[in-house]
Amino acid sequence: MSGFARFLPHIAALPATVPFVGPESLERQSGRRFIARLGANESAFGPAPSVIEAIRAEAACAWKYPDPEAFELREALSAHLGVPIGQITIGEGIDGILGHVVRMIVEPGTPVVTSLGAYPTFNYHVAGFGGRLVTVPYREDREDLDGLLKAARREKAPLVYLANPDNPMGTWWPEEDILAFARALPEETMLVLDEAYGETAPASALPPADAMLSMPNVIRTRTFSKAYGLAGIRIGYAFGTTETIALFDRIRHHFGVGRLPLVAAQTALKDQAWLQWVVERIAAGRERIYATARANNLAALPSVTNFVAVDCGADRAFAAAVVRELGVQGVFVRMPIAPPLDRCIRVSVGLDGDLDAFAEALPKALKAAGR
Amino acid sequence: MSGFARFLPHIAALPATVPFVGPESLERQSGRRFIARLGANESAFGPAPSVIEAIRAEAACAWKYPDPEAFELREALSAHLGVPIGQITIGEGIDGILGHVVRMIVEPGTPVVTSLGAYPTFNYHVAGFGGRLVTVPYREDREDLDGLLKAARREKAPLVYLANPDNPMGTWWPEEDILAFARALPEETMLVLDEAYGETAPASALPPADAMLSMPNVIRTRTFSKAYGLAGIRIGYAFGTTETIALFDRIRHHFGVGRLPLVAAQTALKDQAWLQWVVERIAAGRERIYATARANNLAALPSVTNFVAVDCGADRAFAAAVVRELGVQGVFVRMPIAPPLDRCIRVSVGLDGDLDAFAEALPKALKAAGR
Repeated sequence: MSGFARFLPHIAALPATVPFVGPESLERQSGRRFIARLGANESAFGPAPSVIEAIRAEAACAWKYPDPEAFELREALSAHLGVPIGQITIGEGIDGILGHVVRMIVEPGTPVVTSLGAYPTFNYHVAGFGGRLVTVPYREDREDLDGLLKAARREKAPLVYLANPDNPMGTWWPEEDILAFARALPEETMLVLDEAYGETAPASALPPADAMLSMPNVIRTRTFSKAYGLAGIRIGYAFGTTETIALFDRIRHHFGVGRLPLVAAQTALKDQAWLQWVVERIAAGRERIYATARANNLAALPSVTNFVAVDCGADRAFAAAVVRELGVQGVFVRMPIAPPLDRCIRVSVGLDGDLDAFAEALPKALKAAGR
Repeated sequence: MSGFARFLPHIAALPATVPFVGPESLERQSGRRFIARLGANESAFGPAPSVIEAIRAEAACAWKYPDPEAFELREALSAHLGVPIGQITIGEGIDGILGHVVRMIVEPGTPVVTSLGAYPTFNYHVAGFGGRLVTVPYREDREDLDGLLKAARREKAPLVYLANPDNPMGTWWPEEDILAFARALPEETMLVLDEAYGETAPASALPPADAMLSMPNVIRTRTFSKAYGLAGIRIGYAFGTTETIALFDRIRHHFGVGRLPLVAAQTALKDQAWLQWVVERIAAGRERIYATARANNLAALPSVTNFVAVDCGADRAFAAAVVRELGVQGVFVRMPIAPPLDRCIRVSVGLDGDLDAFAEALPKALKAAGR
């Protein structure tokens, strides 16, 4: 016997695939360093200088366990959002929170609804708890709210995932459509509304923070990884009913979010001027990516996120070749995982130099890919 | 209906208790700040200056996701331990790793063996996956290896937990007993050997890193939270067979350990001189706690960890009163959760000033507790 025989069957049967291969892995494989890191929707503008300072000041306290209640951060979030502190939980990024939500609801065989090509890490958690993923195709490059609703009803699914704004396409629904969708869902279906890109979205795309606070079947997730520029330190949050939030406290890792993320997030929240500056830079960066696409006779999808999906105008194989050829030139981008989205590449907004590198590399990559 | 009806039954039924209440919560409740933080087995000596410097240098890179393979750290650990890199996994502290091990093996009703009064966070995970905890009493303040073995066989338990050195008593078994225990376990029982306090233990208490590497039913956990002084940034690791370690990659949060913990751990591993200095200081601190206990006519248990269990010589109620009265004087300590261990209080080694505060507070606390 080469292995241990009593791992649970749905665990032992999991495939070795992972949601995302890191750029560091690609660099190790190729032996080349990327010159522009535009594949992971990070914020190359970085965290605010005030946040960097706060992390540095806290470094010497790294020997102390973090506050397991994250009280000060939750208090600050409560004031920021206008949501009672008992309705907010903290986690190791949205990824960690999604894992907990799935764990609360999914056992082997449970149907879970999402869009075909939506966030792979959510799918990873569903698979990891043995769930059965039911996917609904995008419609005109947006998540299909009617289709998701029908699938949830048909499957009597206890869980449905929706990102607004969407990743990987950068598209979005206005708040009234999101609210109508949430209200139309059966009470027996929990909606995870992932608002990772909420900070860059127009106000009209985000229901007010208190709009669904009394709905037992809605939980909303946000993160400091994107516009706040803190992907590397892993901190996100969720808000929902008091009952659902209390349930997190019964399964989450109470010491899972470290001191430095807590301090960084608190400081980031206070520095809204920096956030506003970054959001403006991101909007300008999207315009640059649109222009680069146009200059290469490609269509770019209008986006309200910190990335742009660029339609390469052909099939998955061609888009994959473009991603590869951009990589050869040192430009790291990714692409959607499923058709018809996978005709596109997904380019994160970066610094001007990063976008220059992309603009220079794209025509060569298109040529090398055979256009 | 006040809540969502489709949370899994074993989740919805979980109690609201948490493994550890943080000192920050106690401070908020009492309105008083602790002057000596001796309750969480943290290292008040802090991380190495080189580590603090490395964290500060990396702070500006907090916008980049961490390497999901933690390649450089695992490579360094591989060299340090003499264990192949494919047999090492990284996690958000041992707590996070224990959660994954439990998730791999435990479903509602699964029997899991541990010692009565051993690490509460392991029990928390077992409860959180619906497992049935089978506890074996300590014997002369050590975990009872024969008792654990019998319980594992009797219950046909797929999982048994053992900490060596032990927390909360600070006692330990020599490596030959640990090895004999592991070999005597049925192949169908996975041993989690938690060596969180390995760095402060005598070499004779730790089986060589490669001693059980080919045993499919053994996984060993270590941490940077204790002697390395990095409890606040959450990073630990585990090593076992290639097959078991590969299974972690199918369920863990690939981006769960942030950049700052990765850099900090790599730097800490290089600075073995600092570790050695801290280990010596910890040994000296234990002597001080023994002396304080003697001065108050109390017995202290010989310890090889960064804490000492002090026998208060009476029952749980008395020990709890001592903990409370120490707290009133600003000294934070904790106590074991189960009899007969709960006649003791558990005092972490701190800086000289912290141990002075404990020495000053203890006689008053004993008196206030009614001795």
